[in-house]
Amino acid sequence: MSTAEETVGGEDMPWAEVSPEAARRLLVAAVEAFAERGYHATTTRDIAGRAGMSPAALYIHYKTKEELLHRISRIGHEKALEILETAVDGPGAAADRLAAAVRSFVRWHAGHHMTARVVQYELDALGDEHRAEIIELRRRSDAAVRGILQDGVDAGEFDVPYVPGTALAVLSLCIDVARWFNVEGRRTPDEVGVFYADLVLRMVSARAPRPAQR
Amino acid sequence: MSTAEETVGGEDMPWAEVSPEAARRLLVAAVEAFAERGYHATTTRDIAGRAGMSPAALYIHYKTKEELLHRISRIGHEKALEILETAVDGPGAAADRLAAAVRSFVRWHAGHHMTARVVQYELDALGDEHRAEIIELRRRSDAAVRGILQDGVDAGEFDVPYVPGTALAVLSLCIDVARWFNVEGRRTPDEVGVFYADLVLRMVSARAPRPAQR
Repeated sequence: MSTAEETVGGEDMPWAEVSPEAARRLLVAAVEAFAERGYHATTTRDIAGRAGMSPAALYIHYKTKEELLHRISRIGHEKALEILETAVDGPGAAADRLAAAVRSFVRWHAGHHMTARVVQYELDALGDEHRAEIIELRRRSDAAVRGILQDGVDAGEFDVPYVPGTALAVLSLCIDVARWFNVEGRRTPDEVGVFYADLVLRMVSARAPRPAQR
Repeated sequence: MSTAEETVGGEDMPWAEVSPEAARRLLVAAVEAFAERGYHATTTRDIAGRAGMSPAALYIHYKTKEELLHRISRIGHEKALEILETAVDGPGAAADRLAAAVRSFVRWHAGHHMTARVVQYELDALGDEHRAEIIELRRRSDAAVRGILQDGVDAGEFDVPYVPGTALAVLSLCIDVARWFNVEGRRTPDEVGVFYADLVLRMVSARAPRPAQR
């Protein structure tokens, strides 16, 4: 299972930065367990067992189950935010940057669908302080998409009746790929990303920039 | 909690058809418990307790926890399918029918977001036979949306590069409303439905019918 999660769609696995190796292995095991049975039905003993370790060995790296969820959620949200902010700050017209953002955001959610599901569906299980931190990362992701949309509107490239609602819909469309994406399906994460970028450009009625207008 | 679930957005609660009253109350309690803690972390004892009943009283109506999930999932999927098929068979051009389908499908997922989350996220917990039955209902929902899209393409109203992928994206966009919709947010289920109908018409590049062309 962990191998599939790590290599789907040729993506780097999102946990490469976690060290030492035992701490990384425990995170991967926790993602699998949470995805299969849900956070509340999973014990730290289950997670240690999946990682081939003792519960005592787990406690060296993580004091609580919630700490594992928090690490997973923070890394997942930081990667997603990095992808969006890279696209926002990239070159090109608003349409190019929006398409790039959608392509890479979808690719991430398809390629790491198990992690993404845990990150999206178990928010309520985070402690108050940790949830506040994650909500701030989500607020920044939202701001990145609103920023691209507003740039496009200002440049006369996009026709968007309500920027905040459209930004939410764009993110929602991409995030839900994690729910339905099937590694055994016909389309690769890349192909879905390209297809979705086109759908989103239609949603904002993208057209060539008209710098002199409005 | 059950009151909020039943009346949000002025929707009829989806369990009105379930009788007797005790069986209905147990279903509502099961939805709440599954939504809060996940299917695997919930016991039939938890569900009975929430409904103010004994475990023995629960077993009169449901032999297993899986039977409760199956009832919830079947009713939820049947309602969603009914909404889509009503729109497909309705009057008007393809764009009108697609807009009506999106409006009511979104309204359902926003107004019954707790039920919709359980129905969408706990599919893997169903037994093989029950899952096959639910997958068949989902296949019909998918076919309903593909049908409207194809009608629009055939009438020259829509420009859709790939009907199956677009149908999946439309359903996905609507379903994910259940994840982010917040009853304390600024928009009502109706308002989100109207907004999404416009976004989806943009996704299919809807234009006035041109019956004589192509």
